[in-house]
Amino acid sequence: MKSNMILVPIILAVLGLIFMFIKMSWVKKQDAGDEKMKSISKSIKEGALAFLNAEYKLLFIFAIIASVALFIISQIVETTHWVIVIAFIIGAIFSALAGNIGMRIATDANARTTEAAKTSLPKALQVSFGGGTVMGLGVAGLAVLGLSLFFMLFVSMFVTGAGNFYEEMTVALEALAGFSLGAESIALFARVGGGIYTKAADVGADLVGKVEAGIPEDDPRNPATIADNVGDNVGDVAGMGADLFGSYVATVLAAMVLGNYVIRDMSITSPFTDDFNGMGPILLPLVIAGVGIIASIIGTFLVKIKDNTAKEKEVQQALDFGNWASIIITLVASWFLIQWMLPETLLMSFFGEGIIEVPSQHVFYACVIGLAVGALISTVTAYYTSLGKKPVLHIVQNSSTGAATNIIAGLAVGMKSTFLSVILFAAAIFGSYALAGFYGVALAASAMMATTAMQLAIDAFGPIADNAGGVAEMSELEEHVRERTDILDSVGNTTAAVGKGFAIASAALTALALFAAYVTFTGIDGINIFKADVLAMLFVGGMIPVIFSALAMESVGKAAMEMVHEVRRQFKEIPGIMEGTGTPDYAKCVDISTKAALREMILPGLITIITPVIIGVLFGAEPLGGYMAGVCVSGVMWAIFQNNAGGAWDNAKKSFEAGVEINGEMTYKGSDAHKAAVTGDTVGDPFKDTSGPSMNILIKLTCLVGLVIAPILGGGHSAFSEETGEVSKEIRVEVKAKEGDTATATITTTVVKDGKKESEVTKVEGTVEEVEKEIEKQKEQ
Amino acid sequence: MKSNMILVPIILAVLGLIFMFIKMSWVKKQDAGDEKMKSISKSIKEGALAFLNAEYKLLFIFAIIASVALFIISQIVETTHWVIVIAFIIGAIFSALAGNIGMRIATDANARTTEAAKTSLPKALQVSFGGGTVMGLGVAGLAVLGLSLFFMLFVSMFVTGAGNFYEEMTVALEALAGFSLGAESIALFARVGGGIYTKAADVGADLVGKVEAGIPEDDPRNPATIADNVGDNVGDVAGMGADLFGSYVATVLAAMVLGNYVIRDMSITSPFTDDFNGMGPILLPLVIAGVGIIASIIGTFLVKIKDNTAKEKEVQQALDFGNWASIIITLVASWFLIQWMLPETLLMSFFGEGIIEVPSQHVFYACVIGLAVGALISTVTAYYTSLGKKPVLHIVQNSSTGAATNIIAGLAVGMKSTFLSVILFAAAIFGSYALAGFYGVALAASAMMATTAMQLAIDAFGPIADNAGGVAEMSELEEHVRERTDILDSVGNTTAAVGKGFAIASAALTALALFAAYVTFTGIDGINIFKADVLAMLFVGGMIPVIFSALAMESVGKAAMEMVHEVRRQFKEIPGIMEGTGTPDYAKCVDISTKAALREMILPGLITIITPVIIGVLFGAEPLGGYMAGVCVSGVMWAIFQNNAGGAWDNAKKSFEAGVEINGEMTYKGSDAHKAAVTGDTVGDPFKDTSGPSMNILIKLTCLVGLVIAPILGGGHSAFSEETGEVSKEIRVEVKAKEGDTATATITTTVVKDGKKESEVTKVEGTVEEVEKEIEKQKEQ
Repeated sequence: MKSNMILVPIILAVLGLIFMFIKMSWVKKQDAGDEKMKSISKSIKEGALAFLNAEYKLLFIFAIIASVALFIISQIVETTHWVIVIAFIIGAIFSALAGNIGMRIATDANARTTEAAKTSLPKALQVSFGGGTVMGLGVAGLAVLGLSLFFMLFVSMFVTGAGNFYEEMTVALEALAGFSLGAESIALFARVGGGIYTKAADVGADLVGKVEAGIPEDDPRNPATIADNVGDNVGDVAGMGADLFGSYVATVLAAMVLGNYVIRDMSITSPFTDDFNGMGPILLPLVIAGVGIIASIIGTFLVKIKDNTAKEKEVQQALDFGNWASIIITLVASWFLIQWMLPETLLMSFFGEGIIEVPSQHVFYACVIGLAVGALISTVTAYYTSLGKKPVLHIVQNSSTGAATNIIAGLAVGMKSTFLSVILFAAAIFGSYALAGFYGVALAASAMMATTAMQLAIDAFGPIADNAGGVAEMSELEEHVRERTDILDSVGNTTAAVGKGFAIASAALTALALFAAYVTFTGIDGINIFKADVLAMLFVGGMIPVIFSALAMESVGKAAMEMVHEVRRQFKEIPGIMEGTGTPDYAKCVDISTKAALREMILPGLITIITPVIIGVLFGAEPLGGYMAGVCVSGVMWAIFQNNAGGAWDNAKKSFEAGVEINGEMTYKGSDAHKAAVTGDTVGDPFKDTSGPSMNILIKLTCLVGLVIAPILGGGHSAFSEETGEVSKEIRVEVKAKEGDTATATITTTVVKDGKKESEVTKVEGTVEEVEKEIEKQKEQ
Repeated sequence: MKSNMILVPIILAVLGLIFMFIKMSWVKKQDAGDEKMKSISKSIKEGALAFLNAEYKLLFIFAIIASVALFIISQIVETTHWVIVIAFIIGAIFSALAGNIGMRIATDANARTTEAAKTSLPKALQVSFGGGTVMGLGVAGLAVLGLSLFFMLFVSMFVTGAGNFYEEMTVALEALAGFSLGAESIALFARVGGGIYTKAADVGADLVGKVEAGIPEDDPRNPATIADNVGDNVGDVAGMGADLFGSYVATVLAAMVLGNYVIRDMSITSPFTDDFNGMGPILLPLVIAGVGIIASIIGTFLVKIKDNTAKEKEVQQALDFGNWASIIITLVASWFLIQWMLPETLLMSFFGEGIIEVPSQHVFYACVIGLAVGALISTVTAYYTSLGKKPVLHIVQNSSTGAATNIIAGLAVGMKSTFLSVILFAAAIFGSYALAGFYGVALAASAMMATTAMQLAIDAFGPIADNAGGVAEMSELEEHVRERTDILDSVGNTTAAVGKGFAIASAALTALALFAAYVTFTGIDGINIFKADVLAMLFVGGMIPVIFSALAMESVGKAAMEMVHEVRRQFKEIPGIMEGTGTPDYAKCVDISTKAALREMILPGLITIITPVIIGVLFGAEPLGGYMAGVCVSGVMWAIFQNNAGGAWDNAKKSFEAGVEINGEMTYKGSDAHKAAVTGDTVGDPFKDTSGPSMNILIKLTCLVGLVIAPILGGGHSAFSEETGEVSKEIRVEVKAKEGDTATATITTTVVKDGKKESEVTKVEGTVEEVEKEIEKQKEQ
């Protein structure tokens, strides 16, 4: 089995997908309720699929252009094979497929949850969480399956043993990066487009429906109400799913690239071997991901409540119990896998410290750091955005003096929330690197992402419950049904906030792992911001998330205005619409949101993809590294700021529903303070649902594009090793620039002799011949 | 004269100060109007001085603590002499003195401007601009005088010729950094404290006066009205002055440090000599600054309008004419100075490219870039914040749908304004570095700052005119007086926006120059963000400006609330106050603002100063460099975002005064759209006057603290050079870590032979003896 280890993640992924199908057919077998409920659910489903279909058309054009570009790259760069195009296309299709499965089951599960809630709350939870589980397993299963199959294929194609293992494997992993790029491209469409869609529909429906016409939310007379419910699915289900699919794939890929780097460092004295065909460190992250799927399945069985008397607390505990169970199972399994698959001692090169021996347990500790930091950042996010906690109460208090003070307080809360999150994140980088180098950082991210299936099941359960409440309202069911779905919905709001924290943390760690992989791909020594071009690009990179956020926010405004005009038109032109005798043209509103979302995401999307390419080509690998770092630093900050400010404003507004005490007086909905809070919430809407979450995609995609074009940018690099008894020697040559007849080369010679290590870096400048002669001289010495 | 070149900037600075005294006595000789005007002006002056006095007390405590800390550093670090403490104290005193002079003259000039406006608009401009000129010359004169005198002293103390020139000069410049640190510390108090003061008074006065009691702005019945007018002086005059004083000193200092670095690079083959005692590149920035003072004086003579028929346009043109004249004079003078003071060809070491020959004209072109980028960034700022331009009109349009859309539009405008500013800034880094290395970057900044006296004269003129209008209103003078002061005030609003752009651009370039100087001081090879600890600190640095802004914003809220309670109390308890028979207790309000401002600035101030020290001590020089870069990148972004969003909201609100067309309808003050715009303006107030401008201080002070503690952090570094005929050789040794019996050393050997340059970096690890033997071996080779 050891030599066929790659089959393990494949089998685990297939098991996950089989379980997904079982769960899916179970959900579909549930009763979907009466005709009215079915018809509403059907409208939402059709709207959601209409968005997906429109998205696919745009995607198709994008995929063709990107494929051509990738093909051209593969023809220019020696180490990039054209199969990267196939990997890219399949990556895109798998991600789209996962989103499609999730969206279908989510829109199937809503009415069935409502129907179940008529008789039993435990059953309602089972149905809605079952829908989430299908989504989670679809994403995780397809991700691991796609990565493993392509890895198996590319290893058989490129790692022939004819040349240097490290270099052959690099070619294979470079091709695999195409799969990740495909997946992340879909995430761009789903997350950014979905974010614009959901807020355009929401704001449009509210402005005309609630404010102008004075009808309640989810009222069937509002033409935009279906679009609004579709938006919940498009943004929170498909968008979040694609985001995590992208993070999941990219993290595992980065860990594999860095595993290959470990193998290279361990091959200085003699070629690396182990029982796993000499690729244990590369396979480990894939196997951990596979085990995470099974751990998630076990976790889902533990999500249960006893009877109809359960409240929010019990539901939350049930979810938490399942979540922690899957995390602990994964962690325990990781301990054994690391012991089994890695050599007892790893050799890793650390900057400025040379090659250091690292016990394999340190890799496990890095995984623990990843899981701990993921959980802690989620907790910080929950603290800053939860009802009844200090930050939200602070905003509530500041609502009494008007909208302006409410806004200032909300902005300040969002800004302050960056403190702990960033400190935790910096500690994660520092700690996992100190333990096991960048391989440790990547495995910290992998461990955090291993239970993605469970995380996503919990995330997707929220919007299903939300929609179930909408179906109950629109079908005018009995009070107790809505009460039960409200319990689930309320828990869903909390899990949504925590899920957003998890998504940011995972995106940030993923970007970091990709960043580390980037440096190894380009073969540069590092990224020195004391070089002016690198520093300049660090600033440019820092500006991109700000511009991206501005564009996303303005897009929501524009799209919402179109929706407002359409709803006003329908109210005026369709006879009997307000009396409930005329039927609004729901499809038209869905269509407007769809078109606007896809149109508006083109510019930010292009900025994300094209800017790194331009910078890389014009300035080279190191300035592009500076750019990537700038995007990550600024992007993480703006993601946390916007998500948490938006979340806090939302719950500050919700606080007024139950009533809050301001200056000793109980204040409720309809008060001036509440109106101020509504203003804050409206500002926060695009923050938390459009521009904020888009930052995740921006930072990951930037690093992925960098990784894919990395081979074009790096100066040719070759390695030469030699072993003679006790003395080992390695020479690496990097040709920096060739201009006409002159060249510059950096020659690194590392000699280990009697335990004393000496490395010499010689920089030679002169004619091409002189430089070549010098390189030969160094090798002979 | 050439060998006494240091006397030139001293003479020029003294000339500037003499002219300042002449101008000051001229302003004071003007008629200050009737008793009522005099009494109002006196109240404002007393309030402003009360703030300064309270500030001095806090400053005194701070200076003692900082002096002790600096003294301890000077005892630990061999290359830091205890005279740095003296330089620090005098730097603080000079900056405080400049602020004091500016504040006194500004509060003297307001009533005199009002009085002059009774008869003549040209005279009113002359008086108000005269006040500004005094401020500008005070700042520039004291800055150049202090720097030059200390430089002369330190050179005579440390540059004895006994040792290596570069190292002796480094000790002198390290001591000089104390002067800059002292100046920037005052800026922290003046800018951040002043920013909190001005907005607390403004918001407090408006909330109770305008909104609750319904009395107009500047109404003498409002107890907070004096505090409000004091705030204009504290924030816009003293704050801006201290900010620019700090930038000015720091820029020149950084350019001097980098000039010394050039001298080192030029000494590889043979010791550097020139007619200026071998320190032409170090003296050049000081001389350019001195010449800039004279150019500014000439410029001030050109600011004139013809008669009372002049409108905003003519006043603006007069200011622009004077400004451009001083810039062009400085530029032309720089051309000759560079030709004269620098060798025809400079040698500079560029990363990865070795030592390159740079013609001295390239330094001039770098100066041109600095001036051009300064002007362009100011233009971009003006575009995004000016009445009648697209961005402000966009916010106006979005005010019709309520406060929320107004806020979203304003945030988006602020965010989008970062694009061009950052591109320009990146281009400045890239271009000036490509031309003349980091010396070029520092001289670009120096050139931009050379006309600080003129810039500040224009900046300080605005608040004087604003106050003059306030005096006219409170003294109930004839309509035409207020009309004339309004013309000046309106121009002042535009120059304020441009001035803020200039302040950001200068702070950013200053920080960059300091950052470059930092690397040379620590003796590290560069700042590699591919090292995990450096990357982690880049993230932590990126978070600091966000937290700082949040704290500053919340401080304004807290301080304003205290003011509201006090004003309410006075309205209730002082009999006859609303009828104009009782006198409000103005002093109490001034006192509240003062205390609140100073109390609230302590936490952000401590964060700014202590964080880099902690990071430097715990993690070392390179991670601290990462932190500094993070603060700069994020700080520049948040400065531009907050300043421009705030400025745009302000003018969006002002647009309603003359009336604006929204959806085809003319809309005026009092409309719902206007109310929404007022909300936006209130949010923007702390943005543009407190947290935004504070970013300038944060980024500069962070880099300065880094520079001052740099010698503690750098591994001991020593240089060894040898010259034998055609072959030149230089060896630099850096001992990175010594632990018990083992050591690590990096030995850089550069050999230039037959035009072919070879540099070898050897890293040796082993016992201390082995390492020492290796170093000797390298020297002998």
